Amino acid sequence: MRITGVTVTPIAFRDPPLLNSVGVHEPWALRTIVEVHTDEGISGLGETYGDIGHLTRVRKAAPALAGVDVHDLNGLRARVEAALGGEVGSDRHGLTGQLTLESTVDRVFSSFEVATWDIRGKALGRPVADLLGGRVRDAVPYSAYLFYKWAGHPGVEHDGFGEALDPAGVVTQARMLVAEHGFGSIKLKGGVYAPHLEVEAVKALREAFPDHPLRLDPNAAWTPETSLEVAAELDGVVEYLEDPAPEIEGMARVAAGAPMPLATNMCVIAFEHIAPAVAQGAVQVILSDHHYWGGLARSKELAAICRAFGIGLSMHSNSHLGISLAAMTHLAAATPNLNYACDTHYPWNSADDVITEPFTFVDGAIPVPTAPGLGVELDRDALARAAEDYARCGIVQRDDTGYMRQHDPSYERKRPRW
Amino acid sequence: MRITGVTVTPIAFRDPPLLNSVGVHEPWALRTIVEVHTDEGISGLGETYGDIGHLTRVRKAAPALAGVDVHDLNGLRARVEAALGGEVGSDRHGLTGQLTLESTVDRVFSSFEVATWDIRGKALGRPVADLLGGRVRDAVPYSAYLFYKWAGHPGVEHDGFGEALDPAGVVTQARMLVAEHGFGSIKLKGGVYAPHLEVEAVKALREAFPDHPLRLDPNAAWTPETSLEVAAELDGVVEYLEDPAPEIEGMARVAAGAPMPLATNMCVIAFEHIAPAVAQGAVQVILSDHHYWGGLARSKELAAICRAFGIGLSMHSNSHLGISLAAMTHLAAATPNLNYACDTHYPWNSADDVITEPFTFVDGAIPVPTAPGLGVELDRDALARAAEDYARCGIVQRDDTGYMRQHDPSYERKRPRW
Repeated sequence: MRITGVTVTPIAFRDPPLLNSVGVHEPWALRTIVEVHTDEGISGLGETYGDIGHLTRVRKAAPALAGVDVHDLNGLRARVEAALGGEVGSDRHGLTGQLTLESTVDRVFSSFEVATWDIRGKALGRPVADLLGGRVRDAVPYSAYLFYKWAGHPGVEHDGFGEALDPAGVVTQARMLVAEHGFGSIKLKGGVYAPHLEVEAVKALREAFPDHPLRLDPNAAWTPETSLEVAAELDGVVEYLEDPAPEIEGMARVAAGAPMPLATNMCVIAFEHIAPAVAQGAVQVILSDHHYWGGLARSKELAAICRAFGIGLSMHSNSHLGISLAAMTHLAAATPNLNYACDTHYPWNSADDVITEPFTFVDGAIPVPTAPGLGVELDRDALARAAEDYARCGIVQRDDTGYMRQHDPSYERKRPRW
Repeated sequence: MRITGVTVTPIAFRDPPLLNSVGVHEPWALRTIVEVHTDEGISGLGETYGDIGHLTRVRKAAPALAGVDVHDLNGLRARVEAALGGEVGSDRHGLTGQLTLESTVDRVFSSFEVATWDIRGKALGRPVADLLGGRVRDAVPYSAYLFYKWAGHPGVEHDGFGEALDPAGVVTQARMLVAEHGFGSIKLKGGVYAPHLEVEAVKALREAFPDHPLRLDPNAAWTPETSLEVAAELDGVVEYLEDPAPEIEGMARVAAGAPMPLATNMCVIAFEHIAPAVAQGAVQVILSDHHYWGGLARSKELAAICRAFGIGLSMHSNSHLGISLAAMTHLAAATPNLNYACDTHYPWNSADDVITEPFTFVDGAIPVPTAPGLGVELDRDALARAAEDYARCGIVQRDDTGYMRQHDPSYERKRPRW
């Protein structure tokens, strides 16, 4: 079965004003929906980033896939690599680390790769988790992903999710997400306020949720020294501390003195980062993410590396919709050593999903789809609307910092900030 | 498609008197042929070790597989692990390192795992290499595997392969194997004679074959000090030196001073050995082997680990027949970073193969089978004969040392010997 063509559709969906270490989410989040078509009439779905640089690379690679067999992942990746011609992407929004040549290819390859799993699963009548080695769990637990947050975007009094600008607001948000979705773990996106205020918020969460594993992720907003102070404060309170300080070297300094494991989706984001991170003992948990680790097969390879080196494995998320959630869930279901609840932004964005049956959390988990392939179908009307929103919203590159500056011209991007 | 049963057939086939660091090959080599049957009438093949301890474990695990879906590798491995009940195997013949709990399971799991790839490939009408991510080469290069060798087993004047007890004999053997099979790389099994004699043999090979990459493998017969002396002698002569000294610590001492990469199939033979070997810089090339790394999927994970850590990847062999060679070839074909010619004993044993169309080397390589599955079929008559030979030969456990002692009662197993 060979690829005949690829449809690439950039979309936009509404996003609440979620705060982070570089600014605040804009009213629209971007994403790209990929449909890979074959000569046997079966198509497969993928979902990836929507920023213009990446979208341009996806569009550049897509025509090169025609004729490739849907089993031939090696050939598919080689085609993508050749089509990109050695270009290295950049992280313009500032929330991930520096891309490499290999990781630039992996990001583009990933959405096509996921679509081929969808195709092979459909052709065989088997869910993707089966093709990945078989599911070891029937439902994949996700964590409540808390954000400091304005009540609404400027001009909107209340967006339905409420305000969260202090410990009480954070706890209220957690109660809402846990009540609605049943989450059994909680993660707070930090790096927004001075560290002692975020420590207070985490401690308030611990009081309100005595049994929920907790995590704090300041997106490398702290120096190693500040990180060590926070780590001491949160000893016994968080299951891991995520990206407290920038770079492998900074994380290694923190890891040497922190009482809890350190997790990352910023300093180890490509295969070539693993060896130096291991050599320096910089991270104890890697947050995998098939969108940038090169798809589902390579994410399983990352899992094998973590298993061999005694590194914990969790899962990272960006703002995303249901095709990504399906892929994340199949992958997590078939990865025995994925031993933490996965991150997901889905509750913040699911109302605008472009699949016919958006996912519902059951006790904080997504039941692994049992239909063939990824088990999701495009809602063509919703996709058309989201594509129109993309054309209309005027955003082509995520810019949390620029959006924050519109409202606070004195705001500066700084890393570390404290 | 679910497993309904497994047929386990121990076999024996003729083996020449090949010398190594623990003795000499007996007249019969042992192997186990595994046939996994399914409820859709498709069966798959696997080939594994024949020693009694391993055979007993394979027989213990086999009945536990009934009902497992052929895609469910995670479930299959869990069944094997449970059936073995925590038993740890031992390396009684002394040519590999110490087994672990995980590697004992992986050895038994492997033959079943390979059979499921054969089944899935047949069901889909695709060769196994396609299911492993697609072949990146159409033929897999193997190396000429030279051995010091008696003219024949005691009582046999000449077995057709000739004698090789000195540099001239080794070169003659190499000429024969290269002329017959076209091999483009040459490996000498050492650890038999004093190191300076084996260095002489390698230098004679270099003279006779100026352009063939060369390797020497004394199976850890040397101290680190001796290894460093040999390494200095063979600077610029061998592409890698294989297992000169015992254990990760010994290899690390050699690696610190040797001018060429060190390869191993003795000190890194399980996933848990990788981290300490990396930390100590002990090995620069890992010889993978799906028979003990837990099958084809886990061997691809090993390849990913090697890629991430800049470790070279080659492939190890024991005395084997065509089902193993097919699996090795599919795996190597789909592994981009397998960047050395693979080892194989096949030329020494292929006359007794149990498949209908034994393999032929073309320019030292095996063309990747393009038929569905592994692309090989059992020759039922040959299998029956080999099973009779097993019952008749009286060997149930490889014992190169004991066999050598029958002819030289003063022979002792020593490691390191020099």
